[in-house]
Amino acid sequence: MDKITISKPDDFHVHFRQGELMKAVLPSTLKWFGRALAMPNLRPKPVLDTRDAKRYRGEITAAAKEAGHPDFEPLMAIQLTDKTKPRGIKHAQQAGVIAAKVYPIGVTTNSDNGVRSLKSCALTLQAMQDCGMVLSLHGEKPGVFCLDREREFLGVLDWLVESFPSLRIVLEHITTFQAVAKVINLPETVAATITVHHLFLTLDDIIGGGLSPHNFCKPVAKRESDREALRHAVLWGNPKFFLGTDSAPHPRDRKECASGCAGVFTAPVAMPLLAQFFEEHAGKNWRKGLEEFSSLHGAKFYGLPKNSGKLTLIRR
Amino acid sequence: MDKITISKPDDFHVHFRQGELMKAVLPSTLKWFGRALAMPNLRPKPVLDTRDAKRYRGEITAAAKEAGHPDFEPLMAIQLTDKTKPRGIKHAQQAGVIAAKVYPIGVTTNSDNGVRSLKSCALTLQAMQDCGMVLSLHGEKPGVFCLDREREFLGVLDWLVESFPSLRIVLEHITTFQAVAKVINLPETVAATITVHHLFLTLDDIIGGGLSPHNFCKPVAKRESDREALRHAVLWGNPKFFLGTDSAPHPRDRKECASGCAGVFTAPVAMPLLAQFFEEHAGKNWRKGLEEFSSLHGAKFYGLPKNSGKLTLIRR
Repeated sequence: MDKITISKPDDFHVHFRQGELMKAVLPSTLKWFGRALAMPNLRPKPVLDTRDAKRYRGEITAAAKEAGHPDFEPLMAIQLTDKTKPRGIKHAQQAGVIAAKVYPIGVTTNSDNGVRSLKSCALTLQAMQDCGMVLSLHGEKPGVFCLDREREFLGVLDWLVESFPSLRIVLEHITTFQAVAKVINLPETVAATITVHHLFLTLDDIIGGGLSPHNFCKPVAKRESDREALRHAVLWGNPKFFLGTDSAPHPRDRKECASGCAGVFTAPVAMPLLAQFFEEHAGKNWRKGLEEFSSLHGAKFYGLPKNSGKLTLIRR
Repeated sequence: MDKITISKPDDFHVHFRQGELMKAVLPSTLKWFGRALAMPNLRPKPVLDTRDAKRYRGEITAAAKEAGHPDFEPLMAIQLTDKTKPRGIKHAQQAGVIAAKVYPIGVTTNSDNGVRSLKSCALTLQAMQDCGMVLSLHGEKPGVFCLDREREFLGVLDWLVESFPSLRIVLEHITTFQAVAKVINLPETVAATITVHHLFLTLDDIIGGGLSPHNFCKPVAKRESDREALRHAVLWGNPKFFLGTDSAPHPRDRKECASGCAGVFTAPVAMPLLAQFFEEHAGKNWRKGLEEFSSLHGAKFYGLPKNSGKLTLIRR
């Protein structure tokens, strides 16, 4: 099979940045994806409310059009902070914002204005549940040993599920066996995105040979057993797991320096790598598995229609 | 106590390099140490035999003299490879080489000509035991997950101790609780060096915030519990543990790049940091503890006289 066609994929976690950098990286997403959820942690000014989201959507749409993809649909998220009001959530939802993203404070690139305690955001979370906005979580506990941060974060999910039983929650870019197990064992309202690079990398690819800033992201890739759990989650076909590349470009001098930024820029190669992964590991029905993971499960969880377009992948 | 005086310390593990780089970094060692064991993994030509060791000793002595330290004594090690002959060991020992260093193949910077199997070097090890040359081990098992390499290596020590009961062995730059426990539980012939940076760093300092190439070394710093074990080993005053800084300079562009070299250049600050560490953690007799760890235990293990000189540290 040297050519396969699937419904156009969605990337439910991507960093487009702004300005010239956005113009440089956006085509890599446009080439493969019909829609993409644009992460709101922009600098200096993050996407915090309806006005920010509309402006940012306009920037992305204009850049996509300029790049010859007028049909590309940016999916918008706002960043939830301690200051986000329930009213602001409802307003944003009406304007088409589909998710609010929570970064625990200081846990990754551009997260210094993150949330200190989800419990103090209860009314905002209630508003999200009421209007059907998805809670998107960077699932790492701050102040904990780097390799334990995701695992130690997972307990918050129990509180969230108990307190907001119909709030839809996405645990983003999971990296551990424990996160896979947790998401499977929680109700249908809880799902997770998995990146392409976490299907391929372990910590060995960052610190096991030479130090590799271009493989460094947060959460950092863990052990082989964790990678195996992610691979199984993807290959099972469980609709709780879907694609979010977390593709995150940085200028080279912000990676190859004394304090390298977290983030792996995978957009140009994510879909080919994912197709290769499914072909090698998913058996005869790998095309179906690839399509479900990258084009169907996420849209269904977010309550979006399947993309009308198609993507054809050709072996080179 | 704003000024303390101790016997001149020895650094039982340091990378001096050669040529201009050596001239640049050597004064940082000369300032604090009376002797230092110069690691033999030079590039392109490592120190493999008596001739190499004599030549390298000459280079170091000349550079030390030029830098105003004619009394500095370089301690020499050869690198043990699959090709090292028992005859070569005896010859080197007679010429004043005190240790042979083993790198498992490919396990760190400049280790691509390392040893595949210690068991295949039995006759050479026998010769080392016979003539009293110390076996210096980079204790990591190749091909294993980065954080497990040291732990998985430790089993080799049992075979070594059983096969060569009077061979003196130094497990270099240990980083784990398990290595501390292993060295304590083995006979008096087995000791370990501990670096200053491993008393201060954990993996969080490399990948927990921005990616930090200047804190990256092999073996990589591990968990807080591992660091605590190293600190306890140093503070106990057990003569099996002594100072080897593993100070390892690299040009900035070999650190801040796409594949950063392993090695932390600590020579300029190692002794002040160590004094600070002892003062903060060792109680009233901290001067004694500092002197034992940095000036006495190592010399005794290697069978060398105490340095005649003194080092005075002044608080600034």
